[in-house]
Amino acid sequence: MHNIPVGVLGASGYAGRELCALVRNHPRLSLAFATANAQSGNTAELRGGGSVTFIPTDQAPLPDAALVFSALPHGASKQWVDRARAAGARVVDLSNDLRIGNGVEGVPYGLTEARREQVRGAQVVANPGCYPTSVLLGLLPLLEQGLVAPGATISIAAASGVTGAGLTARLDLLFGEVTENFRAYGVGNTHRHLNEMRALVAETGADIDLLFTPHLLPTARGILATMTVPLVRELADPLGPWRERYANEPFIELVAGPPEMRHVIGRNVVRIGVVPAAHVRTPTLVVFSAIDNLMKGAAGQAVQNANLMLGLEETMGLPA
Amino acid sequence: MHNIPVGVLGASGYAGRELCALVRNHPRLSLAFATANAQSGNTAELRGGGSVTFIPTDQAPLPDAALVFSALPHGASKQWVDRARAAGARVVDLSNDLRIGNGVEGVPYGLTEARREQVRGAQVVANPGCYPTSVLLGLLPLLEQGLVAPGATISIAAASGVTGAGLTARLDLLFGEVTENFRAYGVGNTHRHLNEMRALVAETGADIDLLFTPHLLPTARGILATMTVPLVRELADPLGPWRERYANEPFIELVAGPPEMRHVIGRNVVRIGVVPAAHVRTPTLVVFSAIDNLMKGAAGQAVQNANLMLGLEETMGLPA
Amino acid sequence: MHNIPVGVLGASGYAGRELCALVRNHPRLSLAFATANAQSGNTAELRGGGSVTFIPTDQAPLPDAALVFSALPHGASKQWVDRARAAGARVVDLSNDLRIGNGVEGVPYGLTEARREQVRGAQVVANPGCYPTSVLLGLLPLLEQGLVAPGATISIAAASGVTGAGLTARLDLLFGEVTENFRAYGVGNTHRHLNEMRALVAETGADIDLLFTPHLLPTARGILATMTVPLVRELADPLGPWRERYANEPFIELVAGPPEMRHVIGRNVVRIGVVPAAHVRTPTLVVFSAIDNLMKGAAGQAVQNANLMLGLEETMGLPA
Amino acid sequence: MHNIPVGVLGASGYAGRELCALVRNHPRLSLAFATANAQSGNTAELRGGGSVTFIPTDQAPLPDAALVFSALPHGASKQWVDRARAAGARVVDLSNDLRIGNGVEGVPYGLTEARREQVRGAQVVANPGCYPTSVLLGLLPLLEQGLVAPGATISIAAASGVTGAGLTARLDLLFGEVTENFRAYGVGNTHRHLNEMRALVAETGADIDLLFTPHLLPTARGILATMTVPLVRELADPLGPWRERYANEPFIELVAGPPEMRHVIGRNVVRIGVVPAAHVRTPTLVVFSAIDNLMKGAAGQAVQNANLMLGLEETMGLPA
Repeated sequence: MHNIPVGVLGASGYAGRELCALVRNHPRLSLAFATANAQSGNTAELRGGGSVTFIPTDQAPLPDAALVFSALPHGASKQWVDRARAAGARVVDLSNDLRIGNGVEGVPYGLTEARREQVRGAQVVANPGCYPTSVLLGLLPLLEQGLVAPGATISIAAASGVTGAGLTARLDLLFGEVTENFRAYGVGNTHRHLNEMRALVAETGADIDLLFTPHLLPTARGILATMTVPLVRELADPLGPWRERYANEPFIELVAGPPEMRHVIGRNVVRIGVVPAAHVRTPTLVVFSAIDNLMKGAAGQAVQNANLMLGLEETMGLPA
Repeated sequence: MHNIPVGVLGASGYAGRELCALVRNHPRLSLAFATANAQSGNTAELRGGGSVTFIPTDQAPLPDAALVFSALPHGASKQWVDRARAAGARVVDLSNDLRIGNGVEGVPYGLTEARREQVRGAQVVANPGCYPTSVLLGLLPLLEQGLVAPGATISIAAASGVTGAGLTARLDLLFGEVTENFRAYGVGNTHRHLNEMRALVAETGADIDLLFTPHLLPTARGILATMTVPLVRELADPLGPWRERYANEPFIELVAGPPEMRHVIGRNVVRIGVVPAAHVRTPTLVVFSAIDNLMKGAAGQAVQNANLMLGLEETMGLPA
Repeated sequence: MHNIPVGVLGASGYAGRELCALVRNHPRLSLAFATANAQSGNTAELRGGGSVTFIPTDQAPLPDAALVFSALPHGASKQWVDRARAAGARVVDLSNDLRIGNGVEGVPYGLTEARREQVRGAQVVANPGCYPTSVLLGLLPLLEQGLVAPGATISIAAASGVTGAGLTARLDLLFGEVTENFRAYGVGNTHRHLNEMRALVAETGADIDLLFTPHLLPTARGILATMTVPLVRELADPLGPWRERYANEPFIELVAGPPEMRHVIGRNVVRIGVVPAAHVRTPTLVVFSAIDNLMKGAAGQAVQNANLMLGLEETMGLPA
Repeated sequence: MHNIPVGVLGASGYAGRELCALVRNHPRLSLAFATANAQSGNTAELRGGGSVTFIPTDQAPLPDAALVFSALPHGASKQWVDRARAAGARVVDLSNDLRIGNGVEGVPYGLTEARREQVRGAQVVANPGCYPTSVLLGLLPLLEQGLVAPGATISIAAASGVTGAGLTARLDLLFGEVTENFRAYGVGNTHRHLNEMRALVAETGADIDLLFTPHLLPTARGILATMTVPLVRELADPLGPWRERYANEPFIELVAGPPEMRHVIGRNVVRIGVVPAAHVRTPTLVVFSAIDNLMKGAAGQAVQNANLMLGLEETMGLPA
């Protein structure tokens, strides 16, 4: 079988490089081009071996690609999605620009386990944010099955490694500022990713509020979301809703206790564990959801969506 | 003025060594002895210079000390507190054994900012746990002033560096297991420190539940507690309750936004920031509280209490 | 084709788990058993997904395996190598017990790029230490081609991540003791691995001394060896000896400048860079050699050798 | 006694902030001003508590200061040294601009333990680089006493935490690029600090070459230099030369084995250990020298020099 040529726009950042690495190891995809403006002409090493040389984004031979991944910055991505479509390519957009809840309609939201049929065969897919991926896949079984107490606030404390902020030269992301430190940011329920989360919660019909507080971890990768969920009633089998909802899902792992972040690093999976809270009058579940922010939280899910869009096996080329 | 001789039981652990270091730099205290059973005869370096040599605990010349700090393990400490008292020494016990909520009555609980008058002149003080110190000093202003919504659950996600688990040879605390990792533990609202927290909450008369989930950070030191608190009403001046409650407190720092953990390392302070949550129907405050688990969370607060017990200036010898 | 059953003795340590993970992803090998005494009955997660459950070593069904990897501790391994051979299995021994320079003769030393023909078809192979792998593959081209100044001392400063010390509950390997620290150990040219290194140097006929100083890095994995080599003459093409010696080697990467440790993590490669030293009267080359201590330094090279012993493609199942 | 007003130029970087923190805790110095161009108007937290607000450098009230520390970048510092002198202030310059070996003559080189009498009472002092401080204080006893083999090359592998590169927004200093990594830089004996080192070696009359290879550690602070020194003869008492040379030095610590980097962090000391090398035909000593790059390697030594220049006790205000 012939390989399918794909391109990566904005390939020099963390998600872009991970995309190039995944494409490089994919049995059916081949890398037609990888662009980066500030680093055009440079060659970057890929995780797991090999390297990629960047060309300027406006020199991307878009018609050569059957599918284009855009890892361009928020705001800059949409115009390139349009150009790629005009050139006949399918597009997976990893930016915020086309995601649900952000003012654009009609573009399937690529939270694969929630939107598989919309993604399959789509021309354009908006790949979810890293935090929404971990939060939503952790909460959807409870929300969809009407198990969250109406009117409740779900308190979410999430922590992410620094690659979540991108490969940008910011003083507050220097090793000397991050090591032996831990801090919240985007506080007061203001993080950009809340739009996506609220939109999907609303679709379930659940009448609840989210209160989301992200934190910066002294790690390179990984997200762990710890979520306190008031329930309508105690659950005899706490993991039951997830087992039922995610039966046969290749990229969802359910564990008995709290998951460790390291066990998902480098893998396109969500690992979910739940624990009922003792000593509280409201039946409450603590739900933990761990992902690699660059895999299931970005590049891995993008390839998962691309596989579906291109009619390939959904798991192809993805480490699980 | 003569120096006041003090002893440290169980001095080879992280809190014990920090105590020795603080005593060494204290203008009025001098170290009479430092004990450690497994490491007796060994000499350990102290943070900031100098060293200490350990003697076996049962060879401690208790009558030589005006005050004894016990950093012995939970369960093993109480008997030594009794012996030290019988020998005429005052005692600050850093173990769980005599703390409020754990079945012992009549021993002042050394959360200094909450119990200053009981500590002053006491013969024995039970030094609080590290998590309760950060959580309670963060919440007390709201609880005492009746500002938390009755019946509410306060969701607390806290993260601690590994020294919180002590200097113990556990596989799960090895560098290779902790680096690039993050995980919850003591889940389901079961952590031992909850007894202390609930006891002090009960004293305020607040009718609320705590839901506490600790996490292990890839750092040596530090605790950050992120707490979601439903309020009876919006606060026009969100930091007001803390400013009022902690006016003139030398070891409480109030900051406009979320505090960074690194800014309290090596210092006997609690740094508190609060942020109102947008987009939730219940007025809610996110309260952040950061401490150094070995300073305000252990050895520093122990010296703060010892200063009061001995009639010294409360801040003496303590880095703030 | 049928899969070839292999067993892992001492599988609960870092190298043992990596072996299990490599076997799990190997296209032709299958895991017949994995043993561990202290952790028998336990199940451990493998890097990259999946898990393994350990049985006691003395219950290992040795005759079921065509090849056995022994990752048992030094001293304890030899007897099990003998038992496995008696049961008809080939053996790759990762311990120190059978390595060259340690008193045992006749067992091929599995530094694959130096002993490929002896390894191919061997019944037993002694897998090299991690440090010798990085040092020797870095130096052999110069030594074999007579380019090192006779009588010279090659000064080697090497640094390793903590997994090099094994998964053992030692206080000095705790996260709190290793983070933000760096220190030498095995100083004075006394490290156990020197025997292997000297034996292979002697075989080249080079009349030189090694002075080897290992250091402990605050990382989980990786070794970087920095080696100062006095030469018989300036080299017009400094990388020439390596390019010539390692032409067509699948697991050797030559780079223009100094290699970064992170670029070899998770990969069965040695990355070598050399830089001539300015401002010294003796022509001198600084040779850098980087490996993942658990891959090319242990489990990866063990599988590389097993592939050859079993008549498989040398690179099969190995990430390069 | 009145406090002595001092100013800090270029105070927003790592060394500059450390200077502000040291001045803040100094019993006789007070901070008259702190400048920073890019961050003028900003307030920065100081290690150990307190904060400082920066003014633009060209608004520095130089005549208000009895002494000015310049932590301005290399190349930009010299002109401000001249202006501060013209305004009547003494100056400690932490840049490379006035250091020995860099083309400027007549300015005392502030390696205090080597130049105490020149520094005492000087108007201007060039504060040494961090690497030269650790290397030279480690080597001077051997060099001055003629114990290094003539014609020898001293091989120096040094490793530094990232603050050695300054608080600059470089991609290669991001946490995500430095964690779990280790790499050499400035290779081939080309590091800027070699000029200082060679100049001081030359003054001792020792006929030797230095071969210096620095590495970047995944730590915030600290330098460890590992130096291989061929000797003219075996030393019966290996530490003897250091004990003799550094008798009564308050900031030099000699240890029996190899020093750990963490034991010097936050302290204005050099910790030196030496170990004779076995199994080499040339008598050789491995010399280890550890400092905190921001303390004895920069701000601490600057204050040590300032104390001498101002007629204060040399150790005043310095943590040892």
